[in-house]
Amino acid sequence: MKVSGGGVVNVFLEEIRSQPEVLARRLDQGWAAVEEVAARLRRERPAALMVAARGSSDHAATYAKYLFEIRNRIPVALAAPSAFTVYGSPPRLAGLAMLAISQSGASPDVAAVAEEARRQGRPAFALVNDARSRLGRAAEVVIPMGAGRERSVPASKTYTSSLLCLAMLSCALDPDPAFRAAIEAVPAAVAEALASGASRLADGVEGRRLAVIGRGYQLATAQEVALKVTETSYLLAEARSVADFMHGPIAAVDPDLPVLLLEAGGPALADMRRLERRLESEGACLLRIGDTLRPDARSVRVRTGLPESLTPIPFAAAGQLFAHALAARRGLDPDRPRGLRKITETT
Amino acid sequence: MKVSGGGVVNVFLEEIRSQPEVLARRLDQGWAAVEEVAARLRRERPAALMVAARGSSDHAATYAKYLFEIRNRIPVALAAPSAFTVYGSPPRLAGLAMLAISQSGASPDVAAVAEEARRQGRPAFALVNDARSRLGRAAEVVIPMGAGRERSVPASKTYTSSLLCLAMLSCALDPDPAFRAAIEAVPAAVAEALASGASRLADGVEGRRLAVIGRGYQLATAQEVALKVTETSYLLAEARSVADFMHGPIAAVDPDLPVLLLEAGGPALADMRRLERRLESEGACLLRIGDTLRPDARSVRVRTGLPESLTPIPFAAAGQLFAHALAARRGLDPDRPRGLRKITETT
Repeated sequence: MKVSGGGVVNVFLEEIRSQPEVLARRLDQGWAAVEEVAARLRRERPAALMVAARGSSDHAATYAKYLFEIRNRIPVALAAPSAFTVYGSPPRLAGLAMLAISQSGASPDVAAVAEEARRQGRPAFALVNDARSRLGRAAEVVIPMGAGRERSVPASKTYTSSLLCLAMLSCALDPDPAFRAAIEAVPAAVAEALASGASRLADGVEGRRLAVIGRGYQLATAQEVALKVTETSYLLAEARSVADFMHGPIAAVDPDLPVLLLEAGGPALADMRRLERRLESEGACLLRIGDTLRPDARSVRVRTGLPESLTPIPFAAAGQLFAHALAARRGLDPDRPRGLRKITETT
Repeated sequence: MKVSGGGVVNVFLEEIRSQPEVLARRLDQGWAAVEEVAARLRRERPAALMVAARGSSDHAATYAKYLFEIRNRIPVALAAPSAFTVYGSPPRLAGLAMLAISQSGASPDVAAVAEEARRQGRPAFALVNDARSRLGRAAEVVIPMGAGRERSVPASKTYTSSLLCLAMLSCALDPDPAFRAAIEAVPAAVAEALASGASRLADGVEGRRLAVIGRGYQLATAQEVALKVTETSYLLAEARSVADFMHGPIAAVDPDLPVLLLEAGGPALADMRRLERRLESEGACLLRIGDTLRPDARSVRVRTGLPESLTPIPFAAAGQLFAHALAARRGLDPDRPRGLRKITETT
């Protein structure tokens, strides 16, 4: 940590702030790799895409599931790496293609999944920040995250860069000028999110618990924001879709459990609003990040100007500011969460 | 609730205790339906199976993923129902088969997924307790849970019956006399679990938070036990695999956060034990349900005598007793959780 102008600036915050630039560079340099993967997938026409990942990258995989299923209509299965490693009995991948996502590319389990896909003669691609890693070497084509070295343990720029690369791949598979133009507008939307004042949401969180609710595309953001506050402030944070929340966890809601709602526009908004009214009537402590809401002490507006499918990128950036502020308010150093290292080598 | 012999007996506890009988009846009557589905799947040879479910049934879907991928080597994708309903843009299911799991069969989103599979000309099966439901009518073949009416809001017998039916289907797909014999021993193993004294684990839980950790096959149990304590005692409870826990949530561990470890035998045990030693050295408050451990105030031994792939059934029963005891200790009525009804109609 270094102190600058009276405020504490740590690496996590620096990396959060670097995202508009990182994402703009990705748009400049990243299309060739995604076009190559898209061409390969168009030739192969897999019945389904299997995506392997852990941690923040697993939330990028959740985003991939919604994006590829809804926009490209390709079924997506999230891999259970232990079937490949611990149990040594991987599924037969005939008819499938594999995409592995990892910042470091060094976690043995995720690399093992890609290696097994190659062994079975299946197309295997990697979305990775370190192309020289074991995962990078295992893949047929690498899509580089191109985020530069990430020094803070909690991921920020590699997460949003992963999402952007996935959106670029979706666009390359089913080109559409309007979607392409929206992708080009993502860095500006992230800059807008960083100016949204999302840090103030931290003032609404007492205690050691948080629920984060999204629906559809924003389920990935809910998972990622929940992990950020867990890593940086040691909260137990549960991420759920509206529907899964209604099927049980809603029973845990009371005024002591802060609930963060992620309200992007689009078809999922009506459901989010219904849940919001119900929680309000029960006296829940609500926090909100939304595209169209009226800002107040507990509601942050991020005017993304983007189609719903791209809003998880700026919403994640707003969530990072919230997580950072929560740690700062509690006197914790988000760069060095207890019990975690930058590369987690699970098998 | 009724008071019987000095203790409070509610419907949840009655239904928990009925499970050995319910499961034995399933073994008597259930093979024809799973054989029919297995024959259809063998003819069809799908590249992957998509499984659609919500709530407790979604945890049965997690079990199906590990079981079918490891034992039958069929890739499994868990459906995102909102792609089919909210977004109205379902994935192309060519080459896939569909299995929908639901106690009531009445949740519109899960039924809609099965209906869409039929519309696309794909094989669609339902594992359901009410065969006359919308989901039951949509399916090509129904596998009945056969659990009888479940009156308590938190599922118990329909969950273990779902897991047993999935194991029977796995066996029908790849017959093996040893696995078949182990399946026949499940009701006795569940009776053993109900006599394990798992209720005493409730004495180790103060506060409003819990983490439940499994690995591989026991991830489903972790999810189900976490949901049970949320529904019955309003805890915020997080379920994770060991690997996912290491990639972030482990930072939230301190002596105030009880962590329940599910330690079945098999290849996953070494990983569980490594995590256990690490958490112990950090002073975490550990509770354990295990197959081979030494019982004490915070460790419950369930001698299942089963292969790891079937241990989630008796382990879930032990977890139900724990959840029931936790509610009783806090003076809550598990039959009627606040904010929940038996049939949740999400779209």
